[in-house]
Amino acid sequence: MAAEKPLPQPLRLDAVELRDRIAGGALKAIEVAEACMTAIEAQEAEIGAWAHIDRAHVLDAARALDEYRSRGRPLGPLHGVPVAVADVIDTARMPTENGTGIDAGRRPGADAFVVRRLKGAGALIVGKTATTELAYRAPGKTRNPRNPAHTPGGSSSGSAAAVAAGMVPLSIGTQTLGSVIRSASFCGVVGFKPTFGAIPRSGVLAKAPSLDTVGVFAGSIAGAAMLGDCLYGYDAADPATSPMPAPRLAETVAAGAPVTPALAFVRQPAWDAADADLREGFAELVDALGDVCDEVELPGHFAEATKLAELVQSAEMAKSYRPYERRGRDRLSPTMRQGLDEGGRILAHDYLAARDWPGLLNASLEAVFDRYDAIVTPAAPGAAPADLASIGSAAFTSLWSFCGTPTVSLPLLVASDGMPVGVQLVGRRGDDGRLLRTAQWLIDFLKEAE
Amino acid sequence: MAAEKPLPQPLRLDAVELRDRIAGGALKAIEVAEACMTAIEAQEAEIGAWAHIDRAHVLDAARALDEYRSRGRPLGPLHGVPVAVADVIDTARMPTENGTGIDAGRRPGADAFVVRRLKGAGALIVGKTATTELAYRAPGKTRNPRNPAHTPGGSSSGSAAAVAAGMVPLSIGTQTLGSVIRSASFCGVVGFKPTFGAIPRSGVLAKAPSLDTVGVFAGSIAGAAMLGDCLYGYDAADPATSPMPAPRLAETVAAGAPVTPALAFVRQPAWDAADADLREGFAELVDALGDVCDEVELPGHFAEATKLAELVQSAEMAKSYRPYERRGRDRLSPTMRQGLDEGGRILAHDYLAARDWPGLLNASLEAVFDRYDAIVTPAAPGAAPADLASIGSAAFTSLWSFCGTPTVSLPLLVASDGMPVGVQLVGRRGDDGRLLRTAQWLIDFLKEAE
Repeated sequence: MAAEKPLPQPLRLDAVELRDRIAGGALKAIEVAEACMTAIEAQEAEIGAWAHIDRAHVLDAARALDEYRSRGRPLGPLHGVPVAVADVIDTARMPTENGTGIDAGRRPGADAFVVRRLKGAGALIVGKTATTELAYRAPGKTRNPRNPAHTPGGSSSGSAAAVAAGMVPLSIGTQTLGSVIRSASFCGVVGFKPTFGAIPRSGVLAKAPSLDTVGVFAGSIAGAAMLGDCLYGYDAADPATSPMPAPRLAETVAAGAPVTPALAFVRQPAWDAADADLREGFAELVDALGDVCDEVELPGHFAEATKLAELVQSAEMAKSYRPYERRGRDRLSPTMRQGLDEGGRILAHDYLAARDWPGLLNASLEAVFDRYDAIVTPAAPGAAPADLASIGSAAFTSLWSFCGTPTVSLPLLVASDGMPVGVQLVGRRGDDGRLLRTAQWLIDFLKEAE
Repeated sequence: MAAEKPLPQPLRLDAVELRDRIAGGALKAIEVAEACMTAIEAQEAEIGAWAHIDRAHVLDAARALDEYRSRGRPLGPLHGVPVAVADVIDTARMPTENGTGIDAGRRPGADAFVVRRLKGAGALIVGKTATTELAYRAPGKTRNPRNPAHTPGGSSSGSAAAVAAGMVPLSIGTQTLGSVIRSASFCGVVGFKPTFGAIPRSGVLAKAPSLDTVGVFAGSIAGAAMLGDCLYGYDAADPATSPMPAPRLAETVAAGAPVTPALAFVRQPAWDAADADLREGFAELVDALGDVCDEVELPGHFAEATKLAELVQSAEMAKSYRPYERRGRDRLSPTMRQGLDEGGRILAHDYLAARDWPGLLNASLEAVFDRYDAIVTPAAPGAAPADLASIGSAAFTSLWSFCGTPTVSLPLLVASDGMPVGVQLVGRRGDDGRLLRTAQWLIDFLKEAE
């Protein structure tokens, strides 16, 4: 498996350690950047994680960061840390092609909000990672670094694969129904989708604006928290955001859980779709957790959620992508054309009724989160399928995307074919710090139990 | 005409003077309440402004307000001032029947946000005023107090008529496309529709939530400002609202315009529908304003706005009123059934595309408001038609409802049949105080010019 190939030394470090060493002067940004380029050049032909990468530009930018540091100026919280950005997120100095030939050569006029934040934090933006076509279901060129015959998931396939292959320590991507959590689960990395509206989406491809969420990939919870801290905020251009205090994710994770968390194992309505490996893995997990974890059954109306989330995605996508249809419907994949046609037939009436559901569902979830720190549930029906023509199922992630709850996928299980399987933790909306803290507790608890 | 009948003395006073006299002890709330009841009882058979009124309850409440004042306690800003509430706004102690027999006998469990605010301000809630069926186009029982053969407008027909007839000094109602401004124009009172989202709508019948706005009726700008000041606020239950400072409308109006305002006469795309009286009235008005007023032409894409606003209303109404259809479609008017059927056929795709338009239109309007304090435009195509089967046209109000701009109708013109014609002033979103201040300036200017 690719991730077991020897990586250049700096890339064996966790992102937080890397940041600390660069800040402390033990490592130079240029050394880290060169290590990334070495890891990328060794694996890219097999993995196909990148839509755009420019070696000279990356090394120049790294040298500029070192030069900046050498003047003794105050450093940003990600100074010199390499971050990959999914190609559905606008970058003013790099092409942003959204996974479609229709946008070939497109160079946005401005950086996305999150890219401005990364630059402000001193991050080294390494390049643009490959996505599925317009962040929908038609796969891109990326293969799973754990086994290139398997799908890496999607839509943020390149971002997940680049971290899983050790090409970069951190990356950002997007999730509408399942893209961050599923890709993280399939590739065996940490994927974190914050509360809906916590990270502004200005300059991010709008697919279904009432669902679209920016998320992060990392090798650890601490890394995801450090990156997340740089991205939360308010942006008047994104009506889903609102002014509120920053969550201090890294601080919350580092402080640790003040008491033993209470976890709620939820099978979800999609449980029947889960494969045997997954069921067995979860049985063992719940067993290992013992008193810490209760099984909780969601009310019957949750069975509707996935269908309704898909309806909302389809209707909004049909509207959002109308300009792509106009500019080149014949250059869209059959999958996309079918999705747009289906979405274009949805009635406003049904769409508006579906939009009321998250309020109802969240009222039920609030009662769960009054008693439990997090819900434990699968991230996908099983490990990444050995199929490059599909990106896998969103059956275990749609509900949480629909509700806007923060969720994180942890690479804690392994299927019988050796492929990773993610455990998804879901938290209360707005309580992202507690979710990550509980996730870290779970990782530590299982490590001790081994 | 009814409004020229001699009114009981306290009701000849403007609402602000009334408030001041009650606060100062020169008038008792019970005297004012009795005057209201006298005016109502004398005219209600002809006008039909009320859906619910309970003489004993009103007089008891007035006596309780006097008793409260006699103890020397601090008084609310509307202490003892009678206010009528449209019957689409929930009142816990009075029936709220939304203008439909399907809700006959309905008593909500709680007061609407605005009713709680009125009670907190010490207002005397006189009763519930008649509306059209579910605030849509099928007329209620109300007749125009200026001439009972003419429509009072709608949907807030009873609220406009009650103020116009001198039954109450103040009232509140709602506007989706034109209900406050048109009814005020037809009945010859001041109607004020604040910026969309400025007044919380919790407990108000939801027809088209992206358009629905609570508005006020009064005999003067100062009265509308005094009432508006009590209603603005943030309510987490209404996602259109946000925490922001209160606008201090009354203070802004009282301070007067610091410099001569600049006005923009806008014909609107509906100008061709305006009748001869109205064209003549506006020609004279613009002439009288001279240098103060320029004619401004809106860009061509504004021609689409009314159609799109109607599409948004129809689609959202079809969803909002689905429960009424289920409970008693056969008890809905043919007008309503047709509206629901049309709305039910709208595609989500077209609905979502329409929802993007206000952003585009407002970008153009911002440029107008950078140069002008307010837009001057008709409130309706002419005076109230002599037709009780229709509530009149929203052609001159839909655009502003769609854009969410604050607007006010001023009873400044008179048609050749003696019926009032409103002049509509439109302000920048969020700048409601300046709009009312400019409106007061216009009234004073025209009075001086006489």
